Amino acid sequence: MQFHLNGFRTGDPDLAEPARQISGQASGLPEEVDVLIVGCGPAGLTLAAQLSRFGHINTRIVDQKPGPLELGQADGIACRTMEMFQAFGFVERVLREAYWVNETTFWRPKPESPDEIARSGRIKDVEEGLSEMPHVILNQARVHEFYLDIMRKSPRRLEPDYSRRVTDLVIDPAVATSDAMPSHPVTVTLERSDPGHEGETETVRARYVVGCDGARSAVRKALGRELRGDSANQAWGVMDVLAVTDFPDIRLKSLIQSENEGNIVLIPREGGHLVRLYIELDKLKAGERVANRSITSDHLIGAAQRIFHPYSIDVKEIAWWSVYEIGQRLTDKFDDVPEDQTESRVPHVFICGDACHTHSPKAGLGMNVSMQDAFNLGWKLAAVLSGRSPAELLSTYSAERQAIAKELIDFDREWVSVLSARDGDSPARTQDYFVRHGRYTAGTSTLYTPSLLTAGPEHQDLAAGFPIGKRFQSAPVIRLGDAKPLHLGHVVEADGRWRVFLFADAADPTADDTALSRLCAFLAEADQSPLLRHTPAGADIDSVIDVRAVLQQPHRELALERMPAVLKPAKGRYGLTDYEKMFCPDFAAGDIFDTRGIDRAQGCMVVVRPDQYVANVLPLTATGELAAFFGRFMISVDTAAVPA
Amino acid sequence: MQFHLNGFRTGDPDLAEPARQISGQASGLPEEVDVLIVGCGPAGLTLAAQLSRFGHINTRIVDQKPGPLELGQADGIACRTMEMFQAFGFVERVLREAYWVNETTFWRPKPESPDEIARSGRIKDVEEGLSEMPHVILNQARVHEFYLDIMRKSPRRLEPDYSRRVTDLVIDPAVATSDAMPSHPVTVTLERSDPGHEGETETVRARYVVGCDGARSAVRKALGRELRGDSANQAWGVMDVLAVTDFPDIRLKSLIQSENEGNIVLIPREGGHLVRLYIELDKLKAGERVANRSITSDHLIGAAQRIFHPYSIDVKEIAWWSVYEIGQRLTDKFDDVPEDQTESRVPHVFICGDACHTHSPKAGLGMNVSMQDAFNLGWKLAAVLSGRSPAELLSTYSAERQAIAKELIDFDREWVSVLSARDGDSPARTQDYFVRHGRYTAGTSTLYTPSLLTAGPEHQDLAAGFPIGKRFQSAPVIRLGDAKPLHLGHVVEADGRWRVFLFADAADPTADDTALSRLCAFLAEADQSPLLRHTPAGADIDSVIDVRAVLQQPHRELALERMPAVLKPAKGRYGLTDYEKMFCPDFAAGDIFDTRGIDRAQGCMVVVRPDQYVANVLPLTATGELAAFFGRFMISVDTAAVPA
Ligand SMILES: Cc1cc2nc3c(=O)[nH]c(=O)nc-3n(C[C@H](O)[C@H](O)[C@H](O)COP(=O)(O)OP(=O)(O)OC[C@H]3O[C@@H](n4cnc5c(N)ncnc54)[C@H](O)[C@@H]3O)c2cc1C
Ligand SMILES: Cc1cc2nc3c(=O)[nH]c(=O)nc-3n(C[C@H](O)[C@H](O)[C@H](O)COP(=O)(O)OP(=O)(O)OC[C@H]3O[C@@H](n4cnc5c(N)ncnc54)[C@H](O)[C@@H]3O)c2cc1C
Repeated sequence: MQFHLNGFRTGDPDLAEPARQISGQASGLPEEVDVLIVGCGPAGLTLAAQLSRFGHINTRIVDQKPGPLELGQADGIACRTMEMFQAFGFVERVLREAYWVNETTFWRPKPESPDEIARSGRIKDVEEGLSEMPHVILNQARVHEFYLDIMRKSPRRLEPDYSRRVTDLVIDPAVATSDAMPSHPVTVTLERSDPGHEGETETVRARYVVGCDGARSAVRKALGRELRGDSANQAWGVMDVLAVTDFPDIRLKSLIQSENEGNIVLIPREGGHLVRLYIELDKLKAGERVANRSITSDHLIGAAQRIFHPYSIDVKEIAWWSVYEIGQRLTDKFDDVPEDQTESRVPHVFICGDACHTHSPKAGLGMNVSMQDAFNLGWKLAAVLSGRSPAELLSTYSAERQAIAKELIDFDREWVSVLSARDGDSPARTQDYFVRHGRYTAGTSTLYTPSLLTAGPEHQDLAAGFPIGKRFQSAPVIRLGDAKPLHLGHVVEADGRWRVFLFADAADPTADDTALSRLCAFLAEADQSPLLRHTPAGADIDSVIDVRAVLQQPHRELALERMPAVLKPAKGRYGLTDYEKMFCPDFAAGDIFDTRGIDRAQGCMVVVRPDQYVANVLPLTATGELAAFFGRFMISVDTAAVPA
Repeated sequence: MQFHLNGFRTGDPDLAEPARQISGQASGLPEEVDVLIVGCGPAGLTLAAQLSRFGHINTRIVDQKPGPLELGQADGIACRTMEMFQAFGFVERVLREAYWVNETTFWRPKPESPDEIARSGRIKDVEEGLSEMPHVILNQARVHEFYLDIMRKSPRRLEPDYSRRVTDLVIDPAVATSDAMPSHPVTVTLERSDPGHEGETETVRARYVVGCDGARSAVRKALGRELRGDSANQAWGVMDVLAVTDFPDIRLKSLIQSENEGNIVLIPREGGHLVRLYIELDKLKAGERVANRSITSDHLIGAAQRIFHPYSIDVKEIAWWSVYEIGQRLTDKFDDVPEDQTESRVPHVFICGDACHTHSPKAGLGMNVSMQDAFNLGWKLAAVLSGRSPAELLSTYSAERQAIAKELIDFDREWVSVLSARDGDSPARTQDYFVRHGRYTAGTSTLYTPSLLTAGPEHQDLAAGFPIGKRFQSAPVIRLGDAKPLHLGHVVEADGRWRVFLFADAADPTADDTALSRLCAFLAEADQSPLLRHTPAGADIDSVIDVRAVLQQPHRELALERMPAVLKPAKGRYGLTDYEKMFCPDFAAGDIFDTRGIDRAQGCMVVVRPDQYVANVLPLTATGELAAFFGRFMISVDTAAVPA
């Protein structure tokens, strides 16, 4: 954590200086906002937490509910999501509180006595080396609370406006024409339900509106879009219970397939006692196949008891239960611009999360993919509203995330069919499938294909372990300035900045005229330098693009005083030096040049997006290509209009 | 973290159920309390945080200041203290916010040009394998805030009563006689200074009073005790600054000895920019040797600039500075009972921290030793006030901690002389001394000698790596129930419980009639079992003595369902199973049986105190000895009086 840059401040360093622009939020919604977020689910809160970091952006978030979620819903947090939580600064709280999914076991009918289940397999839940973060389980409500805490402490001191239901949304038709563009083209109508204001109507005009309003999204409907897919809904019974059992794997994630009684996905929960059971209702015996509407928690307990046979389970308390009916459904586009107008119009309304895609809860991905949608969109909105990037950048959101959602739906359909399979070898198939798709469930296989933001594979061989289009996978390093062992990926905070990691060539980095020193001189001085081109006058040199270097030498062998100046930038009102830009291998933990396959002779640059995805890999000499790459989606400060 | 045992609760699991007994604290101090703590420094807050966990103990804490500390004072947090913070549940917050002291460098006059300093050495600050925790640096005020947060969330919802200065303390003379013992024998007089109440006097009667009121302790004075030692005070200038410098080790702890300009201890601080400089004032040049009282921050900056030569340091902001005059001083006893009456009387008033001992700030131990004093006392007060232990237990506090403080003073005296030495080879001596004494400064060398609480070395060879009298050093293990890799030491929370770790013999622990299974049967059933003897009726079986087992086998090879019942206890209102009692080696991280030198053939028991010190090592067969050991300082529930 870095703080005290502009002078010492007492108290909690997570509590940001309040933005000058904020005024008493208590007085309700303003008439005009920059961004209106609809829905305080995981998607909406991720987006709100991201945007609240930008003091100059007036973001508001509303929900129809009277207050924060307290119970139930999703609980699976994939490794990739933990990496994102690290970027938001609260992963330590999740690590401490959550259940860690370390291993998964598989249960199937005992061959010699098929009405009893028996353990058929046991595997590590997450493949070694996939992420520095574990896969964990935690009540969705706690994740919400961590985001709310970040929002409260942000420069915007953002609090949701509850008891507000979006009833209508209208986009000024002028946005379809390039001239006479209204500054706040979206008008949203909300209905209040808070005591004393029931039924009152408010309207808010927004530059951008993001519908994070779940599967029945009013924003999606206002755009005339639809969730399309399997109309034959599947129903899952889900219960969070406190129970006494002799089932030995009650504290391990278990996939249980009984001969005739159906299947259970067992997910142990935080705190050491709570357990979630997903029970596939379609697999209940004929006599139990009642209409879902009339299913009670007793039906679920009864089914569970039969599936667990010969083990007993005595449910002492049901913390939450639900019948969760869901099909694999997908919206074809995640913004307001019709497919045939993407070249001529930029979007002003977006949808995220369950508003775009729904699927079974079994792979535990719902909350995760929704938050990743929002993480993808958040920095783009911030870049455009800060005048750093042209509004065209916003078109990449739907393009990137719709493709990912499509994959998710396909994955889920296959997964559900594997889990439900009845044929003899299905347990082996389940386990095999589970292993192969571990990367997918961990959320680390997301790949953005070449686009405005993602370069082609021309120079991929310089850094084989940082695939372009995938998330920048962290690895241990030692910080040169203070000899601290840490994770390189953890410098990629959710602060809207781009990063360029300079992996040095083998030469002594303190010598003159090496590939690294020439590149550093370019970055510091050349007219073409993306740092100079895209950083506003008066702002810290790393405030838009943050350059970090990884050297090959052991940290004790490098003289900090002779390292290139751009790697020790002077910042803030006092011109204090930032000593956290240079790293060396942590040989005890594995040399990052080896683990990430960096070309030692040539070195390379790895360009990382604000949402942690690798955007480009370039030779250290490719100064022109670097400048051109940033020029694709960033406005040069000479030509930039002052952000409105 | 374990929670939801007695039913699911929404919200923050750190927020405890409020104790039934607490009533509106806003109304000021009550007339009677169980424990009155004087002083909200690190000692007082550690004690308050510890006692606030016990809902039935009415603890209050006062300070003469109007509110919490905001700035300055100590900042060094030793590894041992971090282990304690882990037990209190906030170490993650410290790890995230603090500066990590990874390496220490040594600077001395350049041989060929002695008016310039040059680096003469660089070492790892903490020896490999000394603790799983790093040595860190953080503003004392932040540590206070973490404790205050624990207190706020505790069953007592404890908040300090500020603006209250203790002016007098009287112990009822009847305590000197065994009969007619008053229930609340200590009367404390306080003077208020809060607006509207200035000068008002309050009196509080307490069962116990603890003076954590610093070097000028009013409580100590009321006991007629004195801080004795070097009257020749030493003065240190200390400044926390934001500065621009070309000194390359500005982000490394550095001991700098100049030829003629004096010495500096440089401590980088949290946030990446702040630095603390300790400047030994007695070493200033003659012209600078002014009376300490007239020293200004400009004098300190001037001295620092001369010592740093040839490097420059340009101070941009002084966050805090002070001239800190201190001698090595010690109080001969830390409670109210005269040396010659320790056999006949039990103490009712204690002093902790700087009230007992003062020393130079250079080894960074002040805050650490003070907190360890309080950690030592806290669980003892809780045990006595809960009716678990006889009041004689309280005499061990002064006995144990005074000896430790004596060592500290001796260590500090030597350290200061080493740092100040002028002879030619002193830098090498400093560095050598620093290495040898690393364990001491880390706080891990504290050793309690045999006593009521600490057994002799009879069976030490069964667990060579858990020295009796030293803190239980953590090591990585895998939890059997959920395959989670974690640190064994982290199960020792600051909850007042004793722990018995059963390191199994080599036999299959699921077989009948092994040493482990016989011991487990004894613990579960025998009249002599300390669990049955000392756990009140109706309480969970692990609420006084918490038994955990470490098995030798890989975790996947053990059938949980066949493990001894006492290792899977039923707890809480529902009789839910606690699955967190059994551990296996983490072979990838180092088999704990090897790293801690456990006798594999015989196994052993390691008895650990509530403050994490190893109290005893016993063979698995030593059931009688185990019972006798607990019988020394615990009351049997048959004979226990109901706690008053
Ligand atoms: C009842 C329920 C049970 C679930 N159970 C599971 C489960 O067991 N396992 C699993 O993996 N996933 C489960 N999910 C799905 C998981 O919670 C979602 O995938 C995840 O929450 C998606 O996040 P989101 O932010 O896109 O939408 P949501 O979490 O659905 O959030 C949408 C928010 O928008 C608000 N909103 C909706 N319409 C409006 C409007 N017109 N105006 C204002 N506010 C509006 C809603 O009140 C809600 O707070 C469940 C979801 C629900 C609703
Ligand atoms: C000004 C100052 C500077 C220091 N600088 C350093 C440093 O640079 N490095 C370092 O390692 N250590 C430093 N220390 C020492 C370090 O802070 C202490 O070792 C540590 O705080 C000891 O903790 P404690 O709880 O025993 O006492 P303290 O932290 O001294 O706390 C005592 C508390 O008791 C209160 N109190 C005192 N008398 C009464 C009374 N009669 N009634 C009610 N309340 C009372 C005080 O207001 C205070 O809050 C400094 C201490 C002080 C006071």
